[in-house]
Amino acid sequence: MEAAGSLGPGEPQPPGTAEGAAPMNRSGGETGSEAKSVGFVLVHAGAGYHSESKAKEYKQVCKKACQKAIEKLQAGVLAVDVVTAALIELEDSPFTNAGMGSNLNLSGDIECDASTMDGKSLNFGAVGALRVESSGSWVDVRSEQRGCWEGIKNPILVANKLLSEAQKGKLSAGRIPPCFLVGEGAYKWAVDHGIVPYPPDMMATKFSLSAFRKNRRKLELAEKVETEMIQTKKRREVSENTNDTASLDTVGAVVVDHEGNVAAAVSSGGLAMKHPGRVGQAAVYGCGCWAENTSGPNVYSTAVSTSGCGEHLVRTMLARECSVALQAEDAHQALLETMQKKFIRSPFLAHEDSVLGGVIVLRCCKCSLESESAINTQPLLVEFLWSHTTESMCVGYMSTQDGKAKTHISRLPPGAVAGQSLAIEGGVCRLRSPMT
Amino acid sequence: MEAAGSLGPGEPQPPGTAEGAAPMNRSGGETGSEAKSVGFVLVHAGAGYHSESKAKEYKQVCKKACQKAIEKLQAGVLAVDVVTAALIELEDSPFTNAGMGSNLNLSGDIECDASTMDGKSLNFGAVGALRVESSGSWVDVRSEQRGCWEGIKNPILVANKLLSEAQKGKLSAGRIPPCFLVGEGAYKWAVDHGIVPYPPDMMATKFSLSAFRKNRRKLELAEKVETEMIQTKKRREVSENTNDTASLDTVGAVVVDHEGNVAAAVSSGGLAMKHPGRVGQAAVYGCGCWAENTSGPNVYSTAVSTSGCGEHLVRTMLARECSVALQAEDAHQALLETMQKKFIRSPFLAHEDSVLGGVIVLRCCKCSLESESAINTQPLLVEFLWSHTTESMCVGYMSTQDGKAKTHISRLPPGAVAGQSLAIEGGVCRLRSPMT
Repeated sequence: MEAAGSLGPGEPQPPGTAEGAAPMNRSGGETGSEAKSVGFVLVHAGAGYHSESKAKEYKQVCKKACQKAIEKLQAGVLAVDVVTAALIELEDSPFTNAGMGSNLNLSGDIECDASTMDGKSLNFGAVGALRVESSGSWVDVRSEQRGCWEGIKNPILVANKLLSEAQKGKLSAGRIPPCFLVGEGAYKWAVDHGIVPYPPDMMATKFSLSAFRKNRRKLELAEKVETEMIQTKKRREVSENTNDTASLDTVGAVVVDHEGNVAAAVSSGGLAMKHPGRVGQAAVYGCGCWAENTSGPNVYSTAVSTSGCGEHLVRTMLARECSVALQAEDAHQALLETMQKKFIRSPFLAHEDSVLGGVIVLRCCKCSLESESAINTQPLLVEFLWSHTTESMCVGYMSTQDGKAKTHISRLPPGAVAGQSLAIEGGVCRLRSPMT
Repeated sequence: MEAAGSLGPGEPQPPGTAEGAAPMNRSGGETGSEAKSVGFVLVHAGAGYHSESKAKEYKQVCKKACQKAIEKLQAGVLAVDVVTAALIELEDSPFTNAGMGSNLNLSGDIECDASTMDGKSLNFGAVGALRVESSGSWVDVRSEQRGCWEGIKNPILVANKLLSEAQKGKLSAGRIPPCFLVGEGAYKWAVDHGIVPYPPDMMATKFSLSAFRKNRRKLELAEKVETEMIQTKKRREVSENTNDTASLDTVGAVVVDHEGNVAAAVSSGGLAMKHPGRVGQAAVYGCGCWAENTSGPNVYSTAVSTSGCGEHLVRTMLARECSVALQAEDAHQALLETMQKKFIRSPFLAHEDSVLGGVIVLRCCKCSLESESAINTQPLLVEFLWSHTTESMCVGYMSTQDGKAKTHISRLPPGAVAGQSLAIEGGVCRLRSPMT
């Protein structure tokens, strides 16, 4: 088990990675906040594999998402809507596997999952297998004549709308508002609630179409090999490691606003060549994202967003597990142990030789380590971390006190085996709240 | 807070309910098991409202489901397949809100959720918004000309198949098999995997169609009232308690087999007049069912199935919460506290004035209270309980040592308020294992 980086609140920050990436200092200081609202955002453009050649694009999209979130936070927008604004930027990038540019499924369609949770109300909204673009059928795609239908450009917008509509209370005739909609019904609900469908043939990118064709050829070859070999057992072994072009770059964000509310969101195009109708962790409660404001025995407000292999993240309920663990004193240690015991060595994944995923987390409290005057003048202490078992994970973060976002591609330490080892890194930020 | 019934392993059983239902004695004894495999099943036909006039039918379907499960257990079938066999009986009843006779959604279609979990492998399979029958459009239903399409008769069969297919390992080209499919994709996967579609116009019953028409009239009236009143806030208050014909009778079962493996399953037609594409707890991991064999620090094998308002059960993750709590020494106390603290008074449902749901649980271990000779001759001690905040819950249970199933409609104590109070009851059964 490999782990890079370490974090202790109030201590100087260690270098970001074992490979010697730029050290991450405390994000900002306590200067520069002129009456504007404060807050902090951490985003990710996926745990998967980020080639050096595209590093710039991945970092750029994280930067844009952070900047959008900070603009909103400074304007006093609450966390649950800030996190959606950040996600829209991430979905709109053709480089991420969410919204535009998402992986195509087995039929050549794009179906996305997304969800969001508000730590203040504890409300949750999710969409699964939502049509972002539909080619109609595989045959159309094979002939490269894509007869596309309209779809929804930003799945996270539908999840956010479900959450906010549910907050209004019951529907007519005492019906309970839905928190989770899928497929055609989700699409219709979105359109009925004012979300404008996107023109067809705009959401698949040159890259996602080329990956689809490449994957389809591989699949045809693999199935031909299987037919010749007949023996199922052997088939499975042979074909196990051929899915290297699968993109796992689910996106997500966690935010804390000037009131100390946290929120989290996640959005994903799902696994490449997935079966139509397949729903991954990004739409499943407790698995894709989690956010809980401090209350009762919980000293910290926590927010988590996950990325990686949906089935692994569902079965380990990783978002909620991280949130629960983050109530421990040492956040770094708590996340490290959760990733080791509840993910890589989870009894729920005992038969998996490679467990692929990543998380971004933040926790905050008014629990300054130094003696402060009164609790209402204490700054908000924000600890933020990311950890992944995939080759790499691209993250960005920014506070309202920062001039610009920091971005970083975290990679496993040299020699570490993806799916069996992990990297963990993070930082600390103190937000002076002008509101309290 | 009201609670009826109590349970302590090894103690004589108290009367089942405060209303004086038949006392539940230990299920069978240690006689009568002639070489056949042993096991135990507990089923429910929903937490909701079960009228006295239909009590006989509800009990009858629970009885049939128990008998089917016991036949399978005696034949040595493992828990994960036994629980599916029990669910098929429950789905096939026109009286339950699962499979045949399910609630119709807002468009007059039937879309079902179902899931199952195997305590041995910890694998999980789920389908959401799976088409059981489709009328095509509301207009068809309004004119009472139902132009139906084919659907899947038994959603639980698809969930079971997803679970068993995933156990075979990766798909061609290294693709990870899905554990959760929804909508049209789920339907196609089922048909591709040998599940025969059911002829149209067979799954909606006289009762479910009549309830749909009644609900539609109410909805039209409520919406007319709203238009006249305009004020949203008032609208919500007025219409809050008008959904009394909504059936919550999700079905479920928990099983332990001769090897001591546990399994759980759940199936639901969802809320009446739900939005198309709405997915409830029956398809959501950790919310509809849970099963975990004993391992590591867990002394007990546990299995749970939930019923009631899907959104309440999702947001409280009630199945998994019960399973975790059942590792405490006193099962009755653990379930009582979970229902009170993690459901009725859950911070996740702080704004709900009425929290509607029910659970059936079982836990087992080779932890006899009396001194036994050696561990491999110890009987399997099975504790089983049900609890609900709804008016009533219909359950049935049977061990391989019983001549016939016991069935019971549990009701809240007189004066208790549904959604704010609960009933809790249960029993104990000792299974002598001929296999060990």
